[in-house]
This record gives sequence, C-alpha cells and structure tokens, in this order.
Amino acid sequence: MRRAAVLTAGSWGTVFAKVLADAGARVTLVARDREVADSINGRHVNPRYLDGVRLPDQVRATVRPEQALRDAELVVLAVPSHALRSCLLDWAPMVGPGAVYVSLMKGMEAVTSHRMSEVIAQTAGVGPDRIAVVSGPNLAREIAVEHPAATVVASSSAATAHQVQSACWTPYLRPYTNGDVVGCELGGAVKNVIALAAGMLEGMGFGTNSQASLIARGLAETMRLGAALGAEPMTFAGLAGLGDLVATCGSPLSRNRTFGERLGRGMTLEQVLAQQLQVAEGVRSCRPLLALAEGLGVSMPITRQVERVLYEGLPPLEAVKDLMSHEPGPEYRPR
Amino acid sequence: MRRAAVLTAGSWGTVFAKVLADAGARVTLVARDREVADSINGRHVNPRYLDGVRLPDQVRATVRPEQALRDAELVVLAVPSHALRSCLLDWAPMVGPGAVYVSLMKGMEAVTSHRMSEVIAQTAGVGPDRIAVVSGPNLAREIAVEHPAATVVASSSAATAHQVQSACWTPYLRPYTNGDVVGCELGGAVKNVIALAAGMLEGMGFGTNSQASLIARGLAETMRLGAALGAEPMTFAGLAGLGDLVATCGSPLSRNRTFGERLGRGMTLEQVLAQQLQVAEGVRSCRPLLALAEGLGVSMPITRQVERVLYEGLPPLEAVKDLMSHEPGPEYRPR
Repeated sequence: MRRAAVLTAGSWGTVFAKVLADAGARVTLVARDREVADSINGRHVNPRYLDGVRLPDQVRATVRPEQALRDAELVVLAVPSHALRSCLLDWAPMVGPGAVYVSLMKGMEAVTSHRMSEVIAQTAGVGPDRIAVVSGPNLAREIAVEHPAATVVASSSAATAHQVQSACWTPYLRPYTNGDVVGCELGGAVKNVIALAAGMLEGMGFGTNSQASLIARGLAETMRLGAALGAEPMTFAGLAGLGDLVATCGSPLSRNRTFGERLGRGMTLEQVLAQQLQVAEGVRSCRPLLALAEGLGVSMPITRQVERVLYEGLPPLEAVKDLMSHEPGPEYRPR
Repeated sequence: MRRAAVLTAGSWGTVFAKVLADAGARVTLVARDREVADSINGRHVNPRYLDGVRLPDQVRATVRPEQALRDAELVVLAVPSHALRSCLLDWAPMVGPGAVYVSLMKGMEAVTSHRMSEVIAQTAGVGPDRIAVVSGPNLAREIAVEHPAATVVASSSAATAHQVQSACWTPYLRPYTNGDVVGCELGGAVKNVIALAAGMLEGMGFGTNSQASLIARGLAETMRLGAALGAEPMTFAGLAGLGDLVATCGSPLSRNRTFGERLGRGMTLEQVLAQQLQVAEGVRSCRPLLALAEGLGVSMPITRQVERVLYEGLPPLEAVKDLMSHEPGPEYRPR
C-alpha cells in the first residue's frame, strides 16, 4: 500500500488526503494543533477546516512531521506560499530518499518571484524528476463532497506524473498528466489577478459578456507571459489555466473575486483591506507578476489596470474605458 | 459614410445594426414585417426583438432587401442557419460587386455539415477574401445596453478583417482580428453541445469545479476536431472559443443550458421538447458534429455522451460516471 504524507491539514490538504486514501493510499496528515489531529484520529473529522465531511479510516493525523515523513513515498505540500521555504528547510531532512514532492500550492514567492516547485527544488535539493504539481478547478469543498472534477498532474518526468496520477485517480477526481510545470504553476498565479478584475466587473454591474471577454483576454496575456517563460500555450487552454480561471471567476466563494467586487462598488483598497480578514492573493501577486512581465517585454494590459485600481486609486470604470479604447489588434500574438 | 445592410432584424441583427451605426455607418435593417420596419423608422425601436433599446438615427429599416443591398459595402447576415442557403439565393443577385459578406450566424448546415461561410461562398459565388465571420461572447441583450465586451472578426483576408473590425469598433465592443475562419465558426457550433452538458451538470446539482472541468475538457475535444479540420488550436483558447463557451455555459439566458438542465433533472428528450418552444441548437448539431468527428478519427467523448443522453435515454449521471471511469491520459493531444 502506497504511503503519503500531507502537510498541512488546511482545507485543501485535508481534502487531498481524502482523495489519496480513496485512491488506495495510507495517508498521514500533519496538523499544527493537537486538537485537530486528535479529532481526525478519533472522529475522522477535521472540525476546523472541513467540518461535516467524514475522512476515510486510512487517513491518520499527527502533529509530528517526522512521523509522517519517515516512510512517505509522496510528500504532499499544502502550506501558504510565503511559508514554504522555511517549512521545507525543517522538513526536507526527514524525507526519505526517492520520495516524490507534490505541490498543491498556488502563488509565487514574494521577493524572488519563484514558483513553488522552484522553491521545493532549492530547499529540498531534489531534481525536477522528483517534483509534481497538482492544479485545476478544484474548490476543496466540492471535491470533499465528491462532485466530479478534473485536474492536472504536471511533472517534467512522465514517470513521476504517472505515479502521482495513479495516486489521486478516484471516481470523482480525474487527473490528466501534463509535462508543462511552468505553465501549470503560472496559470494558478495569474488567475487570482484576473479574478480581482472579474469581481470589479461584477461590482460595476456588468454581465456575462464582460466576464467571458475578460476571461478570454486575461488568458491571452497569461499565455504571452507563459510563452516568454518557456511554457506551452496549450496548458493555459486547459484545466490548470482556463479551468481554474473559470472556477475562480465564477465562484462566489473566491476571496479574490469578492475583494474585486468591493473595489468595483467604489471602495478603496484601504477600505476593503479594513473589512476583509485576509489579503486576497491577487493583491499580493499583481506587482511581482507585472515586474516579471516588464522584465521580459511582455504586455499585460489587464494586470496593469488592476494594479492602477489597487495602488493608484484609478476608478474601475476608468480602467475598463482605458482597456476598451486602445486600437484592437490580432487576437493572438506570442509576445 | 460607410453603408451596411443587416438581414434580418432579429435580436442580434438589430443590436449589430446599432453597433455599426455607433461606429459611424449608415445602416439599413431588413425586417420581415412592415410593422417592425415602421416602428424602427418611426420610433427607433424594434418592439418585437429588442424592446426598450433606442436605436441610433442612422439605423433605418425596410421590408425590401433590394433597397438595403443596392449600395451596401457590408452585407451582414443574421438569419437562422437552416434558412441561409435559400435566403442568399434570393439576395445575392442584388448585392453590388465588391461588397463584403459578414456572418453573425452560429451553427452548421444540417444535411451538408457545412459552415455558414461555406454556404455563403457557394450561394453568393464570392471568394473567401470577401467573407468575414463575427463571433464571441456576445449576448445581444448585453451589447444592446453597452456592457463592455470583446469579439473576433475572422477572415482569410487581413484587409477584409481589418475593414470589418473598423466598422464595428465602438467604446463598448472591442473586435480583434483573426485569420482562422474555420476555428471561429467551429467554436460557435460545438459550444451549444457543451452547453447542453453544462445544463445537465447544473440540473444534477453539481457545482463550479464540475462546470469548469467540463468547459476545459469540452474545449479540448473541440480543439482536436478543429486541428483535424485545419483550424488553429489557439483560436479555441480565444473569444470565439472559450469566450463564447464560458458566456453560454454561464448564462441563465442560454436555451441550450436550460434544455440540458431539464434533462439533468430527469426529464426525457420528448418531455423537454414538449415544454420548450424552440429546439435548442445543440440538440440539432450534436449528431452532425459526431459524424464529422468520426469521419476524421477524432474522439469527442463529451459530445458522444450528450448524444447518448439525448437519443439513447442514458441517465445523465451514468454519462458522468462513464466519462470519469476511463483511464485519464495526457491533458492535450492534437488528435
């Protein structure tokens, strides 16, 4: 029986532990609090992050990472993007030789603009053939109740992608393989910025055409950035690209969309920040992405307008007018 | 001043006449009924198809096609797909030399599986350089009230695409050019079938992940068919592909989605047909598309399951289980 460790027991980590167990693995979830671990071991429930969903018996929990990592073939990482580097410096020495690292994380490291798989390679000292990324339209709550969904397992090693694919294929989650790690990770990062813009359109009262146009044009600029970074454009037309983008822009549960909606209704960045408990990821990643794009000579007009609304006080309606006013060109250009 | 004829004064035709006029043209709308023409000329309103929206003064209406076609530089066609051939046989002799035909139509001709631009070329006897296709996430009602949207003008002639682009660029509609006519037309035809499936998921109570996964995988099979027909895969990642698909799957106004929703709730094809006034386009185009795909050796698993639900009485939940049960492969394959 396959053995997996999942760190840590937040909502997506907990749900993914259930997926792995349903696909036949013995899974150890690493919780930060003993209370959460005890509840999972005693009642098969994570009351803090996934109340009401019964976890399979093969999911056990611990507060001691070394216990989970010792014999794990898969080390599944689901920590906040800004915490990954310091966490892995602690954990990597406990990981057995030959284990595969699986990233469930979306976002870029703030200062370095590195992708999560790059941070894993650097801190764990493993080659790309031992790293896989899972990304797609995967709202944790819906996977937990087994609504059908698809996802992507990306790795530069086809064997590793296939290994992780078998480990998470269940009747309710359908994982496709993809060799394009850069594209899959980038799709997950940019979508948060586009979701802010989608929220703004919603807040201004615009309808379906506007949302769908934004999604298509947001994807076009993501593809341009991806192409400059060596990603495969088709990845962005897939589950980790448009799939994730559509789910995020369409879900009222999305923090980025909600954040954008308030901006669209006329609130300032400060006013929204004062109301929301957590900063939306897109607010954090907007500027690092623009910096990356500018360094590569890539134009990202929507991301740029989001920055102007966030940090320069531009009214969202003016941002729309600006975007609509430049002479439109061919629909797709690689740069 | 540019002169355009729009045939006929249905809801999208009427709205597009407004777009052309707002972009600076003098437009003649051809109505079937004198009452509609009189109302447009007298009160600047099309009471039957676009009540409550005031049309610009430069939009005039007539019931006599020859009056509209005589000096039109742009001949804009918005008739039902099954009526195009017979209409054009009447109209084409009245069109001046050098006029450009613009298709707003989505769907395939039933018996021949021809695209609308193919029917235009055959019946009007003009070359591809005098034909353009406009397609994108363009629900007529929302364009009418000037919510911002983007669209694609496709033509094999860059000059023609540019000419039509300038003719419909307004502050609320942003037209991009694209050389891939086949891809743009195919995107508009397949999306109706995928929208039926999206409705079924809705009717079964599934959420955002399922919808987004369907959209991404529906697009993947559309791309495979497109590649076999010589289309450019990137077109499907654009406004006429995923943009239109997202708008159709997301809009409660979509007839195909509503039709699918009823199937998803357990009604049979006959029961839905008995309730709905009009057959949804996807019901009509499902089999011609499958026939086309099979002839080219292209696998379209979602379209095939929609056919089974429609015509073989397969319960939608069984269709989902079937789709989820085959071993998943790489995310994208050209065939």
